[in-house]
Amino acid sequence: VPRIRLDIAYDGTDFSGFARQPGLRTVRGTLEEALEATGVQADVWGASRTDAGAHAEGQVCHFDTENPMPADRWARVLNDLLALDVRVLRSRSVGPDFDSRFCAIDRHYRYRLLCGAPDPFRGRFAYATHRSLDLDAMARAARSLQGRHDFRAFTEELDPGVDNTVRDLFSVSVRAVRDEIWFEVVGTAFLRGMMRRMAGAIFEVGRGARDPASIARLLAGEAVTLPVVLPARGLTLVRVRYGRHPRDHRS
Amino acid sequence: VPRIRLDIAYDGTDFSGFARQPGLRTVRGTLEEALEATGVQADVWGASRTDAGAHAEGQVCHFDTENPMPADRWARVLNDLLALDVRVLRSRSVGPDFDSRFCAIDRHYRYRLLCGAPDPFRGRFAYATHRSLDLDAMARAARSLQGRHDFRAFTEELDPGVDNTVRDLFSVSVRAVRDEIWFEVVGTAFLRGMMRRMAGAIFEVGRGARDPASIARLLAGEAVTLPVVLPARGLTLVRVRYGRHPRDHRS
Repeated sequence: VPRIRLDIAYDGTDFSGFARQPGLRTVRGTLEEALEATGVQADVWGASRTDAGAHAEGQVCHFDTENPMPADRWARVLNDLLALDVRVLRSRSVGPDFDSRFCAIDRHYRYRLLCGAPDPFRGRFAYATHRSLDLDAMARAARSLQGRHDFRAFTEELDPGVDNTVRDLFSVSVRAVRDEIWFEVVGTAFLRGMMRRMAGAIFEVGRGARDPASIARLLAGEAVTLPVVLPARGLTLVRVRYGRHPRDHRS
Repeated sequence: VPRIRLDIAYDGTDFSGFARQPGLRTVRGTLEEALEATGVQADVWGASRTDAGAHAEGQVCHFDTENPMPADRWARVLNDLLALDVRVLRSRSVGPDFDSRFCAIDRHYRYRLLCGAPDPFRGRFAYATHRSLDLDAMARAARSLQGRHDFRAFTEELDPGVDNTVRDLFSVSVRAVRDEIWFEVVGTAFLRGMMRRMAGAIFEVGRGARDPASIARLLAGEAVTLPVVLPARGLTLVRVRYGRHPRDHRS
């Protein structure tokens, strides 16, 4: 069965996350309903199960269909059916070995802190704070998160069956972008709530409420105050990267 | 009684407009409820009664209060009480002769057409179109709106008591801003629905569905097809201007 890849973006505010949940408006459920309206009954799989309220600029999904429509037309067809808070940026045909979740090489997330004047147009997309933040201390703390660590202290109660809490973060950075501070992380995969807890720890360091050295102690499993969980609205899945060659998909 | 001026901004999507309406969430009602939570029972008056779904970057309001709190603190106090889609940008003390509505010299509105790739983050703030638009024709048509005209063809059924439909538009322009087209108008005052109908006429000209010369015929009261009304979501009140000197307020 031919497989279609969808690159999508969404304002997650009015979604109960990506994953399908009965009775709730979810990104996956919304996509599957739009497909159903075109006569296609298919499961839609995504690279990342973003939290309720979190956003995506570059989520990647796939589904299988016998519908012979040229693959690039799906974007337009689905956009005409979808609500304005989720958009298909691109649709294309992929081989049967492409899996949006398992072939992803890495995922790039951004957490936005709004430090400037109040702005009702960014309130859905950034966490606003009045506090003055120490950008240098935040950047130092961010560097200590980089690399391969056990991120157990940065996740919620573990789902049964999840016991490996070691993850690789290739790049962790903090930078000022106009009147915002962006905390950005690129890694293979993330534990549930991990980005919002890492952002919380960095925020605590920035406002002087946490010793930057305590991040390393959290990673070492020492008994240190756990980080605050920042609201999902500041979080965006920026991009999911795949290999250039088909065989990279297996890595 | 001391008078406070509030400069506010809002994402109008989830408001039934500025004006108070029983049982509906409105900008004015929301502000008055926030004031009430601080113990202040006051009417809030605004420069412009924006439509349901329309936005403001620079709406101006005023209210009277005996509360002795320094005027500039109201912004912070109200922002802590208000939902994130409406923000007080600034609060300050004004004289008793300042009236946010009647002292306004002019109002600046913007209508945004999104012509680029689909974008879920701007779907609330711009009207998206797939059509290719003739920017030069739109700019020519815009110029014919400038000046003093009878805008009866650009408003909805008149409220009883409203019979003067002549308005002065100081500046009417169309320009490309990245992947958007902005239709911007500065004028003393606007009739109900007038911005969305002018934007509709300009949009029709841009997509080749209306002769640019028909704009002048609409203004002359000739029997010409009335313009389409574009959705409120593309409309933003950008700024309200007041005189530099108190006496200018009366002009």
